[in-house]
Amino acid sequence: MVNAAVLVIGNEILSGRTKDANVAYLGAELAARGIILAEVRIIRDDQAAIIAALDTLRASYTYVFTSGGIGPTHDDITSAAVAKAFGVDLVRDPEAVRRLQERHGAGELNAARLKMAEIPRGASLIDNPVSAAPGFRIENVFVLAGVPRILQAMFDGLRSSLAEGAAQISRTIALLVREGDLADGLTSIQESHPLVEIGSYPNFTAKQPHVAIVARGTDPSELERVIAEVRALAGQLGALVLEE
Amino acid sequence: MVNAAVLVIGNEILSGRTKDANVAYLGAELAARGIILAEVRIIRDDQAAIIAALDTLRASYTYVFTSGGIGPTHDDITSAAVAKAFGVDLVRDPEAVRRLQERHGAGELNAARLKMAEIPRGASLIDNPVSAAPGFRIENVFVLAGVPRILQAMFDGLRSSLAEGAAQISRTIALLVREGDLADGLTSIQESHPLVEIGSYPNFTAKQPHVAIVARGTDPSELERVIAEVRALAGQLGALVLEE
Repeated sequence: MVNAAVLVIGNEILSGRTKDANVAYLGAELAARGIILAEVRIIRDDQAAIIAALDTLRASYTYVFTSGGIGPTHDDITSAAVAKAFGVDLVRDPEAVRRLQERHGAGELNAARLKMAEIPRGASLIDNPVSAAPGFRIENVFVLAGVPRILQAMFDGLRSSLAEGAAQISRTIALLVREGDLADGLTSIQESHPLVEIGSYPNFTAKQPHVAIVARGTDPSELERVIAEVRALAGQLGALVLEE
Repeated sequence: MVNAAVLVIGNEILSGRTKDANVAYLGAELAARGIILAEVRIIRDDQAAIIAALDTLRASYTYVFTSGGIGPTHDDITSAAVAKAFGVDLVRDPEAVRRLQERHGAGELNAARLKMAEIPRGASLIDNPVSAAPGFRIENVFVLAGVPRILQAMFDGLRSSLAEGAAQISRTIALLVREGDLADGLTSIQESHPLVEIGSYPNFTAKQPHVAIVARGTDPSELERVIAEVRALAGQLGALVLEE
């Protein structure tokens, strides 16, 4: 199984000032390659917090994608924290300097901008077609910009380097039923289909309050069987099937 | 300092099927009480993952709020995981049973619904005025429903039991400047105001691309001074101030 974690770094996300858009994007893009997004963490611009999260996540998942904190200002501390987490120096990368120079001209390449050319020793650059300042990959960790447009452009370039997992597919059936009436039968269905992940999601705010049953897995015919059994259960309970 | 973490539990959030609305709500409500939201984790419906996250978060922060996984179906495993994390039994709570009975009548109170009356030994109930099935508090952990309307109603009832921190306030100033030109001066301002947290957020998608500088802290006059210094820096750089 190929899986991944996303580590969002930034006080502005936790304070609610900035709405994160990167988790949903990465989740969908990873799923499309059969990579399961297994965990997300959102943490502050704090070196110790970044190192602790990275150490756990990179040991637990196939890939870790970080978002945020690689710009030129004092609150951009991700690159230094990643270097420290891997126990390597932060070094000025000549190719990154060249790209920034091409973008800004030598006259504008001040100390703050050159900071964006510093990457952990041994890391490889991730292209940034939007604003030149690169992200980087070190081992199974991909360090990306926080600005969604830049993160997406970076991901576009690295996508093909990721392993592909078995495609995850899902089927949904919505029932006019209360969860508590459905639960026992649904447990039996889950037990007889251990390779399918069955989720039950009540929706109280829809025009017709209902329960959505989502079956997720890699085998389409197994999903078909699960949905058929849920439909039969709905019949036994006298519950209308709302949509499929 | 009073701080908190939010632990969102649910495959449906990670798969992108359901958009989380609880983090933004809790972040804002906590900030209003001067409680800093310091970390968010989103994890799968997995007992080991819930226990590991709880163990870390409850040791690290004043409060932990969990969201999701306390309903009647097989994928609702939060209460059992919390009990295990605290090393206590999951027990049927008579008052929770009474509330469910009042809501559903004895005839409808099947095994699945009774599961919602099981809480870790020693926990206290959190009222659910929407659908009766309670949340619970154990030590510094508040276990809340995932459905936003229910989570919000639960939080309304428990809010007054939380410690209050110093009110966090923020001031924002937006400059027509590129971050790389501003960074050095901004670093100096941050260094002379260590009690103010200064963030720099480029916005490339606004009608006029700009950089928003956010000063956050508890002392209004310190924030005033920081904003005045940023305005002076903008003047030196010949950068227009867009709004305040």
